[in-house]
Amino acid sequence: MNTSSFKDVERSPSRDMDPAEFQETGETLLQWIARYFRESEQYPVLARTLPGEIRKALPTAAPDAGDTMQAILEDFERILVPGLTHWNHPRFFGYFPITGSAPGVLAELLTAALNQQAMLWRTSPAATELEEVVLDWLRQLLQLPQGFEGVIHDGGSSSNLHALIAARAAAAPEVRTIGIVARSDLPPLRIYCSEQTHSSVEKAAIVLGLGQRAVCKISVDEAFRMSPEALLKAIRADKAAGIQPMAVVATVGTTSTSSIDPVPEIADICEAERIWLHVDGSYGGAAAIVPRHAHIFAGVARADSVVVNPHKWLFTPLDASAFFCRRMDVLRAGLALTSDYLETRETGVKNLMDTGVALARRFRALKLWTVMRYYGAQGLRERITEHIRLAQEFASWIDASADFQRLAPVPLSVVCFRAVPTARALSPDGLDELNSDLLERVNASGEVFLSHTRLNGRYALRLAICNIRTTEAHIATAWRVLRETLARIPAYAS
Amino acid sequence: MNTSSFKDVERSPSRDMDPAEFQETGETLLQWIARYFRESEQYPVLARTLPGEIRKALPTAAPDAGDTMQAILEDFERILVPGLTHWNHPRFFGYFPITGSAPGVLAELLTAALNQQAMLWRTSPAATELEEVVLDWLRQLLQLPQGFEGVIHDGGSSSNLHALIAARAAAAPEVRTIGIVARSDLPPLRIYCSEQTHSSVEKAAIVLGLGQRAVCKISVDEAFRMSPEALLKAIRADKAAGIQPMAVVATVGTTSTSSIDPVPEIADICEAERIWLHVDGSYGGAAAIVPRHAHIFAGVARADSVVVNPHKWLFTPLDASAFFCRRMDVLRAGLALTSDYLETRETGVKNLMDTGVALARRFRALKLWTVMRYYGAQGLRERITEHIRLAQEFASWIDASADFQRLAPVPLSVVCFRAVPTARALSPDGLDELNSDLLERVNASGEVFLSHTRLNGRYALRLAICNIRTTEAHIATAWRVLRETLARIPAYAS
Repeated sequence: MNTSSFKDVERSPSRDMDPAEFQETGETLLQWIARYFRESEQYPVLARTLPGEIRKALPTAAPDAGDTMQAILEDFERILVPGLTHWNHPRFFGYFPITGSAPGVLAELLTAALNQQAMLWRTSPAATELEEVVLDWLRQLLQLPQGFEGVIHDGGSSSNLHALIAARAAAAPEVRTIGIVARSDLPPLRIYCSEQTHSSVEKAAIVLGLGQRAVCKISVDEAFRMSPEALLKAIRADKAAGIQPMAVVATVGTTSTSSIDPVPEIADICEAERIWLHVDGSYGGAAAIVPRHAHIFAGVARADSVVVNPHKWLFTPLDASAFFCRRMDVLRAGLALTSDYLETRETGVKNLMDTGVALARRFRALKLWTVMRYYGAQGLRERITEHIRLAQEFASWIDASADFQRLAPVPLSVVCFRAVPTARALSPDGLDELNSDLLERVNASGEVFLSHTRLNGRYALRLAICNIRTTEAHIATAWRVLRETLARIPAYAS
Repeated sequence: MNTSSFKDVERSPSRDMDPAEFQETGETLLQWIARYFRESEQYPVLARTLPGEIRKALPTAAPDAGDTMQAILEDFERILVPGLTHWNHPRFFGYFPITGSAPGVLAELLTAALNQQAMLWRTSPAATELEEVVLDWLRQLLQLPQGFEGVIHDGGSSSNLHALIAARAAAAPEVRTIGIVARSDLPPLRIYCSEQTHSSVEKAAIVLGLGQRAVCKISVDEAFRMSPEALLKAIRADKAAGIQPMAVVATVGTTSTSSIDPVPEIADICEAERIWLHVDGSYGGAAAIVPRHAHIFAGVARADSVVVNPHKWLFTPLDASAFFCRRMDVLRAGLALTSDYLETRETGVKNLMDTGVALARRFRALKLWTVMRYYGAQGLRERITEHIRLAQEFASWIDASADFQRLAPVPLSVVCFRAVPTARALSPDGLDELNSDLLERVNASGEVFLSHTRLNGRYALRLAICNIRTTEAHIATAWRVLRETLARIPAYAS
């Protein structure tokens, strides 16, 4: 990148970069990024770097004197870019292929420049109220009732943690003051989720001092959905044993297969047993804004808290997780603390620091607002609809192939499958090895990137579609690369 | 902002914004930001918005059809900008006046565009290894020994939480699996900090299930520094009562006064009593990179964990908190969980998700790297030195004034003081009222923004200097506005 005109400018010893230099350097970056968006397909999706390679290419200590932006950006291109796994590549199909859309990226530029800290209403009325408004827009699109108040956290793991902080505060409000151990008559608290629930729930149980043992993993049906019967049985057995149910976490769009837990039945149980119901829609929830797919959120209106991550499937750059809670006051009562130096005179305002662990809060609502306005509800719906269509398409190719086998239903945009070559009968372990080998070879090609999971103990390949730039041609490439690569694995070639 | 040329472009139903439109809109934004940096002094520092005003100016639902970027940016200027409290204003002296420098802002643009998710090494080798390298640069500047491993969290509250997760894992490793309550022989765990410690420590105690009661607040001396004698006494009394000390949190640069706890003496106690020592240098730690002020980090090398926030006083845009730990493996053992779908083949690599609650991890190292390279260690040191000099200068004006009184020493860049008008003798409550009134009037002027705290139960004004664009002229304005405003308060005017 060429930003040389400021190379020799004398720098003031205690000022920021000159605004003219900022602007000129920024233009160089915009040009680079525009080309990056246009030509992202030219990069290998998965970085080809070896462990330690980037570290070794960087100096071991900070420079004493300042460098020019030109030198910095040259090193960015030379050293760092080859070490990127391209999440923005339209043939990135691993994990959940989160994408920042261009309007979201532009909003992040403003966010960084304004550097708002929205801990208190007065430290950024605009960030505080926009967060309220834009989450209310999203709430309506998700068809959640008005009682749900929203706040943005940095990710689904944080949102799940906050849901469980609230659930704990509801089950045992005194824990805030005296802790878990001090109340000798407090029964053990338990969290119920399925075997397919995201690991952040277990991590939250560790953090909260409940321990992994407090997480009861309910069995799933053949479509990887939590069994309400097994849930009810577990709750009743626990109650009989003196254990207090604290929360049930249902998932709309699990990480491995995108399965959708039967929330209506689970909500029935939670209401009858008076247990906090949290719905993790970090990935899948976004699809509920599409009328044709809105059924995936059936029953969710009855939950106590819900999470949907705009940085996953609403084209908002990292990080933005929308946490909705029907009983936000319980979270506030359980968590809020105001130091002397944070007291303000305003009454009736919301101070967003009260609903989270984080005090430093970026102006994240700006990018969500920009994305929702630029695409409109319709534009967002079209893109999500198309991703689900592409996943169905890919699934139909798998189903029609003799050498591949689909391993789970495809309610959203994730396809789980494996190679089962007809040419040779393989043991279950042999199939695992083959598919693991296939995935490494496919990813090493640089053409596509897929990830894997395990289903019923067996290795499964996993193709997920959430990237705003992914089209049918890209999934066709994935299918071609998979078949060609399989055919080239000597021991299994047909 | 005029970005009209793409107003009528037909949009593809399932694509991102055209890269040419991205580039052109971005140029408009850069121009706006450059002017914003140049003319930031023209804005009132504290937003003049009334509660609810911004919310009312915004539509109550998301648009169905997409908007043009021009319409969005017009609303940004018209509705949102008046609701900003200008953290980037050089006369913002409240809280800790965090500033994003221009190079950091540019790096955030790249971060958003690349949308790296650095949970696993393979999902972004560049972000993973740069985070390691750039935190090692910072470690060296802070003169911390090699054993300290670094990781970036979103803020000081998170870093303090992680320090205490690690401390708990060290004190009672089985808590990870069985929780606090299940081990009936586990004594209550206690955290020690001073009365001046940041509230995030108490919040962490709540989250961890220890409760507020687990936090023992040690008294401070006349300079608001933790008393090592009182600490030792509290620890011994607790041990005698069957309570298990879990962690001591010492602060280098407390939030109210920037006081510096006597870390060497505290470290002696922690070593003798085998207690985890965490040093919260979220704000003050940055000054340790200046040789003349390095003494503030005396003893910190003996801590188990340390936090320094580059987004506070190292000119890095929100959010970036550097968490250093000498026993990061304890944190990993206490917290890490790897789901099937996140297992990778690489060996000997660091997966940054293992050292935090968050799974979604932005490429935050990029901005810290850019800032450190652009200014160099020398440039960063010059700016911090200048801020401390400005604070001393302001303190000297307070000390020389008959109508103002300084309320705490000024070891770093925070000055606590109050008006004590000579013209009229006031009760302690009267002085509190006067100063609260003075602060509201000063802030309402829009010329400067200061915040307050309470010291020994009494209201104190607080002027803090961390903004890269603040010069002596700006603090002179603050001093003038304070004196003129005081003179204009009728009841107290001299």
